[in-house]
Amino acid sequence: MAGGPSTPALAAAVCEAGGFGFLAAGYRSAEEVREEIADLGARTSRPFGVNVFMPPAAAADPETVEAYARRLAPLAGQAGVELGEPRFDDDEFEAKCSLLAEVTPAVVSFTFGCPEEALVEELRGAGAEVWVTVTNVEEAAVAARAGADALVVQGAEAGGHRGSFVDRPERVEYGLLALLQLVRAEVELPLIATGGIATGAGIAAVLAAGAAAAQLGTAFMLCPEAATSPAHRQALASTRPTGLTRAFSGRLARGIVNRLQSEHSAVAPLAYPEVNHLTAPLRAHGRRTGDEDVINLWAGEAHALAEARPAAEVVAGLDAEARRAATRQR
Amino acid sequence: MAGGPSTPALAAAVCEAGGFGFLAAGYRSAEEVREEIADLGARTSRPFGVNVFMPPAAAADPETVEAYARRLAPLAGQAGVELGEPRFDDDEFEAKCSLLAEVTPAVVSFTFGCPEEALVEELRGAGAEVWVTVTNVEEAAVAARAGADALVVQGAEAGGHRGSFVDRPERVEYGLLALLQLVRAEVELPLIATGGIATGAGIAAVLAAGAAAAQLGTAFMLCPEAATSPAHRQALASTRPTGLTRAFSGRLARGIVNRLQSEHSAVAPLAYPEVNHLTAPLRAHGRRTGDEDVINLWAGEAHALAEARPAAEVVAGLDAEARRAATRQR
Repeated sequence: MAGGPSTPALAAAVCEAGGFGFLAAGYRSAEEVREEIADLGARTSRPFGVNVFMPPAAAADPETVEAYARRLAPLAGQAGVELGEPRFDDDEFEAKCSLLAEVTPAVVSFTFGCPEEALVEELRGAGAEVWVTVTNVEEAAVAARAGADALVVQGAEAGGHRGSFVDRPERVEYGLLALLQLVRAEVELPLIATGGIATGAGIAAVLAAGAAAAQLGTAFMLCPEAATSPAHRQALASTRPTGLTRAFSGRLARGIVNRLQSEHSAVAPLAYPEVNHLTAPLRAHGRRTGDEDVINLWAGEAHALAEARPAAEVVAGLDAEARRAATRQR
Repeated sequence: MAGGPSTPALAAAVCEAGGFGFLAAGYRSAEEVREEIADLGARTSRPFGVNVFMPPAAAADPETVEAYARRLAPLAGQAGVELGEPRFDDDEFEAKCSLLAEVTPAVVSFTFGCPEEALVEELRGAGAEVWVTVTNVEEAAVAARAGADALVVQGAEAGGHRGSFVDRPERVEYGLLALLQLVRAEVELPLIATGGIATGAGIAAVLAAGAAAAQLGTAFMLCPEAATSPAHRQALASTRPTGLTRAFSGRLARGIVNRLQSEHSAVAPLAYPEVNHLTAPLRAHGRRTGDEDVINLWAGEAHALAEARPAAEVVAGLDAEARRAATRQR
């Protein structure tokens, strides 16, 4: 939910409705995260989580990034914007971790890698649970060894970036249900299932599969509390297909297929966050002008089931339906 | 389970244990199917199903197939076999349908397409239920309109061929749980969930998601009653990754990645059944000699959880675990 949809208002509404809301720290400065946490804390006294991106391992090859920039130049020209500087950065990782050890949300979850044992210890010592996003059994084992309190098991159906520790060309993406069974067989930690869950029946399903909780993102992106752009909302409300792409950010992510995605996915390099910075002005232009051809339309596979209702109603509906589904099953 | 693992002994063992066994009619002559049905009927008096491949729409471009044959020639040379004749055929579709209207198993299920309404009527008039395999919402709607009694909802996690109506380069493959929710929202027919289900918890999950039943294939491929080749068994018992490929058959299918799959998937043409006939001698050689590099190692994503036990024990274990999982969830 980083990069747009995530807001303190949305997380607060989820918390107040009896869910467990999350703030996305990704693409925000540590100072902005501090402000958003304060905002959220002012809106609800219930516990919440903050999700942090682990920093990329190494900068990408500049020539590969430049070649991709040349490829996108005509699109930028049509839009009348300049492409961004394809810089390498760590999204203020250290500063965010220090902040979170200081303000201590109930949960700090990590994506794009596994925090070092020392960091896990520090956050836990400060009073936070540490959750790690995993996309295969090997990552689950690493996170368990690092001392994670719980694993966010992300199936291939999930919208937005794959939470994998390392992005590789020949990665194997597991469907959520297969992955839950495989991870459950190897790791005893509580599992939070995510990816393509859009209904109470879907929640009941992952609980039956052994998950302790379900994590939903796309299902909340049409809520009025989310800061999802109008063009993105329109695409989410359709039945259009999604696909995995590196075209927008240089890292594999699932979005609703649009022109930029279909024309450039085949050649987009593995170069995160460089390509993300490169395309930022183009994506911002698309959101501003409603030109959906150049927006990263992140969405899970079941986006057509998302409801344009206040988050409290979405939570209440999911809860009631999940309870009915669990009963029906017996 | 066509093309090897499926046997009357396996289907009978599943039926006798309280499951609903299926025979694969694919890659068998109508006469062989008649014999297998008689064999199965002699082993169990319980109801069972027979799965039939819908015929391909049109023959592939011969030049594309020849180019692929030239590419595989060195592999065939190393193995000391000649590649097969890349012929077009319909797998005796008409004869099989006539047979099934005559001997009438409890269920006739179709894969690779939707039978015409007249055929659905004929089989149902003869006393069989008609199930149609679907991989997206559009196919589900077509099958419902054709009069199907139930839909086999196949997630991308499934081993072997995708059951899609048409194989296309840019197909979107849905994870099982996302697909179940999407289809459930559009179609009221009973759904049979399949793809990556390997445990009782997985069965409980799809039932909670609204499926009427779970269909498992890979979970039975290590049973002594299955005719799975030794090299294939060894691969199934590993944690090796699977991938989608057209390299073996010219139609998209999921198998454990081996040499032929990794070296030729990127260029294998959409040419089914031509490529399937082309590679048949090579695959047979692999199974005979244990050279797994050239075998289509069909497997679902959760193959590492398959158990090498008699089918009756597998069914009993899954049943007990599914009941426990359903209880745990409340």
